[in-house]
Amino acid sequence: MLVGIGDDAAVVEPERNRVEVLTVDALIEGVHFDRAFVPPDAIGHRALSVNLSDLASMGASPRLALLSMALPPGLPLVDFDGLVAGFTALAAQHRLHLAGGNLTRSPGPLVIDVTLVGTVKRRQALTRGGARPGDELYVSGTIGAAGAGLQMLRAGLKSCAAPAGSGGHVPSHVAQNFSPTCIERYLRPDPRVRLGVLLARTRAASACIDLSDGLGDAVHQLAAASGCGATIDADALPIDRDTRAWFQERGADEVPEAITAGDDYELLLAVRPRTARRLAAAASRAGVEVTRVGICTGDPAVVLECARDGAPIRRPLPRAGYAHFR
Amino acid sequence: MLVGIGDDAAVVEPERNRVEVLTVDALIEGVHFDRAFVPPDAIGHRALSVNLSDLASMGASPRLALLSMALPPGLPLVDFDGLVAGFTALAAQHRLHLAGGNLTRSPGPLVIDVTLVGTVKRRQALTRGGARPGDELYVSGTIGAAGAGLQMLRAGLKSCAAPAGSGGHVPSHVAQNFSPTCIERYLRPDPRVRLGVLLARTRAASACIDLSDGLGDAVHQLAAASGCGATIDADALPIDRDTRAWFQERGADEVPEAITAGDDYELLLAVRPRTARRLAAAASRAGVEVTRVGICTGDPAVVLECARDGAPIRRPLPRAGYAHFR
Repeated sequence: MLVGIGDDAAVVEPERNRVEVLTVDALIEGVHFDRAFVPPDAIGHRALSVNLSDLASMGASPRLALLSMALPPGLPLVDFDGLVAGFTALAAQHRLHLAGGNLTRSPGPLVIDVTLVGTVKRRQALTRGGARPGDELYVSGTIGAAGAGLQMLRAGLKSCAAPAGSGGHVPSHVAQNFSPTCIERYLRPDPRVRLGVLLARTRAASACIDLSDGLGDAVHQLAAASGCGATIDADALPIDRDTRAWFQERGADEVPEAITAGDDYELLLAVRPRTARRLAAAASRAGVEVTRVGICTGDPAVVLECARDGAPIRRPLPRAGYAHFR
Repeated sequence: MLVGIGDDAAVVEPERNRVEVLTVDALIEGVHFDRAFVPPDAIGHRALSVNLSDLASMGASPRLALLSMALPPGLPLVDFDGLVAGFTALAAQHRLHLAGGNLTRSPGPLVIDVTLVGTVKRRQALTRGGARPGDELYVSGTIGAAGAGLQMLRAGLKSCAAPAGSGGHVPSHVAQNFSPTCIERYLRPDPRVRLGVLLARTRAASACIDLSDGLGDAVHQLAAASGCGATIDADALPIDRDTRAWFQERGADEVPEAITAGDDYELLLAVRPRTARRLAAAASRAGVEVTRVGICTGDPAVVLECARDGAPIRRPLPRAGYAHFR
C-alpha cells in the first residue's frame, strides 16, 4: 500500500496482469445478526466472511478491505474491540490488508459494511453464467448446518429467557440436541477462498456461486444466469448428522430445510464431465469435500428429484432463500 | 467493466500506469442528515459527494462506485427512487460506474455506505503530509455556507413545527434571511474533483485535504501530517455575504463559525511559493476560485491571526469540527 489509513483515502498499486474483483455487503443488527446470541468477535468474523465468500465464488484472491461501521451509543468498548479482533483475525488468515475505514455513531442498530477488493487472472474469473446442459453440479462441504445452528442459538435464548417458574435454564430435551458444530458453522463460517482460487486457476469449474442465500436460491441463480435448467438429487445432498437430527426431531423434513437455509458460505459449482478429475484435485488440495448433487439440463425447469420406493418424485426446487425484506 | 452488477462480485480491469485510490464513507439518518428537511435526491447526492471529495483531495479521477444501502421499512418507493436518482445524476456527471451494490432492510435509520475507487498517476497522488514551512495555504470556494445552510433548514423546520397559534408558517424575520445559495451548498455540494485532478496533474500543490470536517480541523490535520505549524489569517477567509449575514444576525462571530462548520467539501491546499502560478492556472481551468488564507510555519503551533487596530491578535485555531460522537 502506498498510502494507508490516516489520509483522506488509501493509495494502492494494482497487481500486474490481473483483473480486480469488487464486492460490498453489510451486516445490520436485527436483520443479519442478533447481539443477544452472536458474540462480538463472531459479528466481525461473519461480516468479513460474507464478502470473502463472494470473492471465493469468483475465484479471486482477497487483497484489500474497507471497513465502515456505525456504532450504537451503548456499545461497550470491549465489544467493539472483540468485533474488530474477529474481523482482523480472519483478515490476517487470508492476508487481507485493511485499506480504509470509517467509523460513525448509529442512532439505532450496529452496522458493519465491508468492501473487498480481490484479484484474479483475466480469463480465469468464475461467474454464475458459464454452465451448460450436461455440466454436473457439486457443492462444497455440507449444507443446512449454519441454519440449524441459528435455530439452536434462538432456541437457547428462548429457554434462557423462560419465566422464573420454569427454572430459567435451558430445558434438557432442547439442550441435548444442541450441536457445537452447527452453532460454530453459523457463528464463524469458513468461506471457501482457497477452493475458489484453485478452481479458477485450474479451470475446474464452468460456473460458481456461493450459498449465502441457500442452495435452492443458488441453483436457481446459476441456472438462470447460464440459461439452463437443473435437477438436484435430494438423496445426494450433503447434510451432516447433527443437522439432520435437529430438523427431524422438530418434525421438519431436513431436505427442504437444508436447501432453503442461508448462511452456509459453501460454493455451488458447475463442472464439465471431462474436468471432474481437476475438480477432485482442487478440492483435495483445498482440503474441502465436494459432493455431486445434480446436473444442468436443457429443460429450463429447476427440479428436486428424490427416489421413493424406486420411482423418482420430481418437484420444483424450493428457493425461499434469505428474505432481506421479510 | 468485465462483469457488472448481477454476479457475486464485479470484475474490472485496472487502468495502466496508474495507482488506485480507495475511500469509504457512510451517511446515517439522524447523524449525518435529517429526512425532515433533506429531500431524497439530496441524500443520494450528498452520500456520493462526501466520497468524491475524498478522491478530489488525493487528486484522483473517480472511476468506480459501490453502493450499499439499508432501508427503513416505511421508506416510500418514490423516496428510494429519488435517492438513487440523486446518486446516479452526480455519478454520471463524474463518469463514475456503479460496480456493485447491496440492498438490505434496516430496523432503524436509513444508511447509505459508498465506496469509491479512483485512479491517479503513481507519483502524482496528493496527501496531507507534503507541506513544509513557507508553503502557502489556499482554500477553494468559500467556507461556512453549508453550515449556515444547515442552520437555516433546521430553523425553517422549527418554525414550521411551531404550535398552531403561531400561525404555523415560517416567521418573516427568519424567512427573510434564508439564503437559497447556502441551503443548496448544504443539500447539493459540488465536490472539487476537477480541481483536485488538475492540482495532481500539474503538481501545483504540496499537500491537500478536504474540508468535510471544517477548515479548522483540516488545517490541524494537514499541519500534523506534514510536521509543521500554520498561521491562518482571519481577515482573508472567503466567507460569502449571505453566510456572514446569517451568523452576524444571530449574534455569532462569523469567523469561528465558518472555521468550525462542516459539510463544505472544499479543498485546503499547501502550495510552494514558486508554484503559485501553477495553482492559479489549475484553479482557472477548473473554474474554481482559490484564496490564500495562511502559511505553513516551522513553529508547530496552529494559529488564527487577525488584525485589530493594526496590532495582530493570535489565538489557537478552533477545530471543533464534526463531532461524530456528540
